[in-house]
Amino acid sequence: MPKPRLYINDVAVRDGFQIEKAFIPTATKVSLIDELSATGLAKIEVTSFVSPKAVPALADANEVLAGIERVPGVVYVALVPNIRGVQNAAATGAKPDELNGVMSASLTHNRANINRTHEESLAEVPAMVRIAHEAGMTMSMSLSTTFGCPFEGPVSEDAILRFVEAFLAAGVDGISLADTTGMANPRQVEALTRKVLERFPPRDETFYTLHFHNTRGMGLANVVAGIAAGVRSFDGSIAGLGGCPFAPGATGNICTEDMVNMLQDMGYETGVDLDRLIACARRVPAIVGRDTPGQVMKAGPSLETHAVPESLKERI
Amino acid sequence: MPKPRLYINDVAVRDGFQIEKAFIPTATKVSLIDELSATGLAKIEVTSFVSPKAVPALADANEVLAGIERVPGVVYVALVPNIRGVQNAAATGAKPDELNGVMSASLTHNRANINRTHEESLAEVPAMVRIAHEAGMTMSMSLSTTFGCPFEGPVSEDAILRFVEAFLAAGVDGISLADTTGMANPRQVEALTRKVLERFPPRDETFYTLHFHNTRGMGLANVVAGIAAGVRSFDGSIAGLGGCPFAPGATGNICTEDMVNMLQDMGYETGVDLDRLIACARRVPAIVGRDTPGQVMKAGPSLETHAVPESLKERI
Repeated sequence: MPKPRLYINDVAVRDGFQIEKAFIPTATKVSLIDELSATGLAKIEVTSFVSPKAVPALADANEVLAGIERVPGVVYVALVPNIRGVQNAAATGAKPDELNGVMSASLTHNRANINRTHEESLAEVPAMVRIAHEAGMTMSMSLSTTFGCPFEGPVSEDAILRFVEAFLAAGVDGISLADTTGMANPRQVEALTRKVLERFPPRDETFYTLHFHNTRGMGLANVVAGIAAGVRSFDGSIAGLGGCPFAPGATGNICTEDMVNMLQDMGYETGVDLDRLIACARRVPAIVGRDTPGQVMKAGPSLETHAVPESLKERI
Repeated sequence: MPKPRLYINDVAVRDGFQIEKAFIPTATKVSLIDELSATGLAKIEVTSFVSPKAVPALADANEVLAGIERVPGVVYVALVPNIRGVQNAAATGAKPDELNGVMSASLTHNRANINRTHEESLAEVPAMVRIAHEAGMTMSMSLSTTFGCPFEGPVSEDAILRFVEAFLAAGVDGISLADTTGMANPRQVEALTRKVLERFPPRDETFYTLHFHNTRGMGLANVVAGIAAGVRSFDGSIAGLGGCPFAPGATGNICTEDMVNMLQDMGYETGVDLDRLIACARRVPAIVGRDTPGQVMKAGPSLETHAVPESLKERI
């Protein structure tokens, strides 16, 4: 049986850089995105249209979008928290190809993150889709805390199915199920995503995306579970950049190049040039000024063999 | 369908501490092992009978074994690289319950690690089993580089099956398949261990053990794959202690409490008290004098909820 083609997206420049205290120069962002564009990634989330007061790290959204070199076939994505974000993205000169709206499956997290009830959030989605489409952009929605909420704990499967149904009714072009704080486990991922895909079959291979964090070390196991359930599109962050506000010292997003290394070892076609991706990841520690959680950037690809250490050579 | 009971072993005091440059005091080792004994682990690998010149960090094998308090039901294991190690373990006053012999599936690694050809290594196993049994200890064998060799690359499945057959012919009490440098991927783990278990069915649930490293982030995904193939016994290292000599900065063994957290979330019974295990892991950074790769020790168990941050409370 031929193995399915998988689609890999990187969110480091948005999800990773957004929590950096020191502002990362626009030119550095642009240069890293341009290097990522040559790796074979399906999508790159490059910035957010959010209040620069709330997220000063991404206040240069317009400049980043104007500065990058677009590679045909790569989808350039910007995050938007609300209608205002969509309007601002539509008004910019160099528009993103796709907008990624966010809301949270748990009420407490939705209020804490975007200051809205579920009804207020859902009521905005049809207009967000319309404005995005009128401006020539696709509009997807991300559902945070799909697999658990750091404030409320478990989130019911029925609630997730209702959100997916509402997003579909609003005409979204894609849905991302996000494990915002690394609470998902492989059994849960396989069961829930299987239900979603059976109830609401995807119109194409990249309609559903899984977005995992590695906060408790389960991230790559969840990717394998998601593939088993039929998902073909996965977010990661080069160098494992990102973080979890409730777990100081814990890792954030799953690491894109660790994921690609695993998927290639498993025989999947990802379209990604692993060596180029690792080269991008190896730039990140210098950019953020600290060590990053990525493993393959330190250990090398699985099948990169090593010389026998000099101290042992006499035995061999 | 009831979920299978799983058996969790910790190797931090041996596999982790053996590479520490500063000698960890015997009393610290004993106190940590005693605390681990109360967590519900199936086995604890507490030391090695190796040349104190080769591994000075574990030169206190006799003292550690004499100092710990044995908890009924917990199997205390010591690693032995050869017949001399078995003889030394048999001669000590407070013997381990089980010895774990090691050899490598790849010739280059076997020569580099224990300075023997495969024939020389295999020829010793029957005598190791006999001496261990005469001294009232069980004797298991670990096969390093089962899933790949850092010098040679891939190792053939047929080679692994031949080693397993030879170990069984020698009368071993258990076999551990070890991914010494984190090269295994989930597809490979499921395929190879399924072949081993079908060809040589285990005589009990803990006959086969999988020993993974997380060098490339795939460790917990490999555990899930191993369970699917029918393995029930898994090694880990609290706090993710351990390392890989060919990957400076990369993690070593998979983290025991991260594994237990995942397995409990998935609904498996491990017999392990996760909170107590996390308490043990949280002692480790102070003991080794640096941060350790474990995630759950930083983030807490998946379903430990958090208070809403003060700064967000007015919104809720």
